[in-house]
Amino acid sequence: MTVDPASTPAGRTRFVLVRTSHPGNIGAAARAIRTMGFGRLVLVAPYRFPDPEADAFAAGAVDVLERAIVVPDLAAAIGDCRLVMGATARQRNVALREHTPREAGPRAVAEAQDGGEVALVFGNERTGLENDELALCHAAVHIPADPDYSSLNLAQAVQVLAYELRVAALGNPTAPPPRKSDPPADAGAMEGFFQHLATTLDDIDFHKGRSPETILLRLRKLFLRAQPDERELRVLRGILSDAQRMARLAGYGPKAGTPTPDGEG
Amino acid sequence: MTVDPASTPAGRTRFVLVRTSHPGNIGAAARAIRTMGFGRLVLVAPYRFPDPEADAFAAGAVDVLERAIVVPDLAAAIGDCRLVMGATARQRNVALREHTPREAGPRAVAEAQDGGEVALVFGNERTGLENDELALCHAAVHIPADPDYSSLNLAQAVQVLAYELRVAALGNPTAPPPRKSDPPADAGAMEGFFQHLATTLDDIDFHKGRSPETILLRLRKLFLRAQPDERELRVLRGILSDAQRMARLAGYGPKAGTPTPDGEG
Repeated sequence: MTVDPASTPAGRTRFVLVRTSHPGNIGAAARAIRTMGFGRLVLVAPYRFPDPEADAFAAGAVDVLERAIVVPDLAAAIGDCRLVMGATARQRNVALREHTPREAGPRAVAEAQDGGEVALVFGNERTGLENDELALCHAAVHIPADPDYSSLNLAQAVQVLAYELRVAALGNPTAPPPRKSDPPADAGAMEGFFQHLATTLDDIDFHKGRSPETILLRLRKLFLRAQPDERELRVLRGILSDAQRMARLAGYGPKAGTPTPDGEG
Repeated sequence: MTVDPASTPAGRTRFVLVRTSHPGNIGAAARAIRTMGFGRLVLVAPYRFPDPEADAFAAGAVDVLERAIVVPDLAAAIGDCRLVMGATARQRNVALREHTPREAGPRAVAEAQDGGEVALVFGNERTGLENDELALCHAAVHIPADPDYSSLNLAQAVQVLAYELRVAALGNPTAPPPRKSDPPADAGAMEGFFQHLATTLDDIDFHKGRSPETILLRLRKLFLRAQPDERELRVLRGILSDAQRMARLAGYGPKAGTPTPDGEG
């Protein structure tokens, strides 16, 4: 089963690693793109490939390595591409349009969705891409990093770009609302809880002569913020009921201040 | 020269790696956070650390390793944190609010900018975080990955999160969540509250022979979700104390089942 048949945008997206020194980075990059739903790796003049170290770092993504294409130069890797974006470690080329990964993602996805082949290109770990290689790119991508320590590991850079492309393809940067097993309790149930809470606080003599409104409002905000579901509300009301029971047994409760058979209150 | 003095938001952000098997991943994670302007690593019961492999993978970020703190359990790593977010490989925990990295970034940055300590927590490479570790988190973070191959390398997951936090700090388009007037209580204060709650439920005979764990976990999730500030926590603990007082007066409480001077219980 192919991860990304050519008929899908992911299938039209390739990750090109140029003159990679360490086979481990090739393997780690294979894993990185695979986790984000991509599967096409092109290797331009890798120092050592295939290599057991690449397999080791690929973890379960060895299929990506097996399908990797090896070519002698960058032109051969991208000839059929409509959009080629080269990763740069720092602002390098004033004439080359520079994107953040956040911008590159949607651009790459749009091109691929439009039927075009797209390449994300990464250079050697130490030296990056040569000027004549950047000259083949439509745009540069610069991952915003700490200027004092901007050297991301190659496979890490691949991971970040692949991640941004996936998020762009999913078209929805924010998660769906939290899925809880029960729906949040409705306003009527919450009001019932707040009344129960208010009565309980009276029963256990919480206010001690102070005005209850501020406290009740504060508690209201806290519990509304928590958005309890119906099961949680049942637990909370069970706690309130048991506190009320203790108050009654202790001689407090609804007739607080009135003598009870115990003689207390 | 320190990367991130405690007076900066980045300086208030720590990356916590729990029970990491491979020291290489610790080193790679150190490098990953350093590239994004962070420098605080906390290691909970790492299998092997310090280790030459960690140094090798850290590349130039060995200073992060040198400053890393090693503790025996997660609670010790996050006690002073107002916001704790745990990375999960898949939607695990229906009552734990789940964020994408795109949402987690602004939330973490807002909390740190507000002066709070923030922790991003990552579990063991193979098994992730245990349920009792997730129970200490205010929210989960799930990196959107290919469901057929969702296993990001640990350091890659750290890189993606650190990257999103950096982008958020640089002021990218998503807005920070609404701020509250008082800072949220830290994890240590929350644990104190949970212990008080557990004791109170015993005192008021809430469990009635049932197993307390499920209820306590459900309540924990509810209150962590609410992120109470210190004032709200004081109110809640005041209510617990008064419920306990009623239980004692009623002859229940810590010696429940033992005859009291009242003759009850």
